[in-house]
Amino acid sequence: MSVVTLIEYLAVIAAAIYGVLLASRTGMDFVGSFSVAFLAAFGGGTLRDLFLNREPLFWIGNPHYPITVFVICIIGAFTIDHLPRIKPLLLVPDSLGMAFFTVAGTAIALGSQDSWFIAALMGAITGTFGGVLADVVCNEVPTLFKPAPLCATCSFTGAWVYVIGDHFQFEQVTMTIVSSAVVVVFRLLAVRFDWRFPPLRSC
Amino acid sequence: MSVVTLIEYLAVIAAAIYGVLLASRTGMDFVGSFSVAFLAAFGGGTLRDLFLNREPLFWIGNPHYPITVFVICIIGAFTIDHLPRIKPLLLVPDSLGMAFFTVAGTAIALGSQDSWFIAALMGAITGTFGGVLADVVCNEVPTLFKPAPLCATCSFTGAWVYVIGDHFQFEQVTMTIVSSAVVVVFRLLAVRFDWRFPPLRSC
Amino acid sequence: MSVVTLIEYLAVIAAAIYGVLLASRTGMDFVGSFSVAFLAAFGGGTLRDLFLNREPLFWIGNPHYPITVFVICIIGAFTIDHLPRIKPLLLVPDSLGMAFFTVAGTAIALGSQDSWFIAALMGAITGTFGGVLADVVCNEVPTLFKPAPLCATCSFTGAWVYVIGDHFQFEQVTMTIVSSAVVVVFRLLAVRFDWRFPPLRSC
Repeated sequence: MSVVTLIEYLAVIAAAIYGVLLASRTGMDFVGSFSVAFLAAFGGGTLRDLFLNREPLFWIGNPHYPITVFVICIIGAFTIDHLPRIKPLLLVPDSLGMAFFTVAGTAIALGSQDSWFIAALMGAITGTFGGVLADVVCNEVPTLFKPAPLCATCSFTGAWVYVIGDHFQFEQVTMTIVSSAVVVVFRLLAVRFDWRFPPLRSC
Repeated sequence: MSVVTLIEYLAVIAAAIYGVLLASRTGMDFVGSFSVAFLAAFGGGTLRDLFLNREPLFWIGNPHYPITVFVICIIGAFTIDHLPRIKPLLLVPDSLGMAFFTVAGTAIALGSQDSWFIAALMGAITGTFGGVLADVVCNEVPTLFKPAPLCATCSFTGAWVYVIGDHFQFEQVTMTIVSSAVVVVFRLLAVRFDWRFPPLRSC
Repeated sequence: MSVVTLIEYLAVIAAAIYGVLLASRTGMDFVGSFSVAFLAAFGGGTLRDLFLNREPLFWIGNPHYPITVFVICIIGAFTIDHLPRIKPLLLVPDSLGMAFFTVAGTAIALGSQDSWFIAALMGAITGTFGGVLADVVCNEVPTLFKPAPLCATCSFTGAWVYVIGDHFQFEQVTMTIVSSAVVVVFRLLAVRFDWRFPPLRSC
């Protein structure tokens, strides 16, 4: 199993566990848990694929991903009381996942000849909008949109690093590693030191 | 009018009435009522068509469907006080509708060479996500995701029956009838005997 | 800069300011503000493009639009205390924007050989659903769906004027002006005289 595939799997698994935890807080049952986990894991990439008219959607082309999420939800249903304890452990795979999805989204948008701003935006949407959709379905104002440790900003910054690296024709491997590292380090620092935007009102 | 067309019409009508009732509970006006009824009737199929990149969307290709929903909403606006009384009568057309949409979704996904799991998932999404979208727009946690008599599970089960029947190359008519019957009977039994998943928390 | 481009810009700017105001009321930060402004400005057109399978999406093909929204959000973050004061001034650009998006949506749907009803519906969706999506993400029941001065109805009426004009082969310029005027005048009158549908319940 290559490193990329491993990170991709980690990203899907971390997002799915996030979804299961969110669903259980909202008092959902197994169907809700699977749906929310699904949205969290595949929502961002699905938006990207729909926006860029790519076919097939990445989870339709890789059906072992939805099956993985399904299995996680079954395991989650039986171990839900222990899940919150592993939540802190999710920060790193979660950040890795966001970094991975960000780079994938940016690279695909650049491949479609989209402009720099659109490519960076697509990276950030791919990296973060799964969680947004999961929150909306759970009838909550998305965490991403409220004052909280920077998240989309880390993804957007990493996407710009990739875009600029692409412009200067760095090797793809280098760009992937560097911009992923930017996302992960920026995100971990933001959580550690509680970097955040102020709410709009108090500006 | 063939039996399939009749069921399809019943499905659209039942979903639209569900939407009108939901909109009136939320204090909406005619525009809200039409939008929610529209989502309830066409939301699942629209997601399926977008996900599988099918063109035109089924309600764009069959414009008499949206017109039917529009007419139902006009009638609904003038008879809203009597609508709740017919709600119990909707269980059977609703189940038939779910069965029909499930089979249609599964068959279309199998026709796109999608894997078994994806096909079954697409069937369940087509069968049930109209109601989910309608609930989200009405600012409610989707009923489908909360402990309640099994619904998506019935759809998913029927979809698997169709997928397996397709693998063993049964005739399409047989598979359609059998898997629809599974959905309808399973759903009616679930409502009658209140079969449900527990909420995740109490597992 | 042609008149059409000017109106289009006004429409995007008015929608973006609407989004910033909505986001600030919900206590969001800059990321939320940009996301909601983005949805308000591009949500309706994105739905139309996805439904009609048009590629690229209009904001991907015109990347200066998202950049404009981004700049508005930055300015908005520093001037948020003054924004509510300019809200009343937004009614006219907002109506112009709705008119513009309505005509654009209707014309595009007619160009895809869609039926009259679908074309008018697509016009109204393009004209009004940005605000609906923004409201849903902010966890509010969409204003458009609740008893309030007519809005979607003005858009739908203007769309029908365009559809009928197209049937009688009027010149496109004439149709654009006449149906835009219908939308704007109808909307301004509706706000001035508080024309609205009753809530469904009290019918």
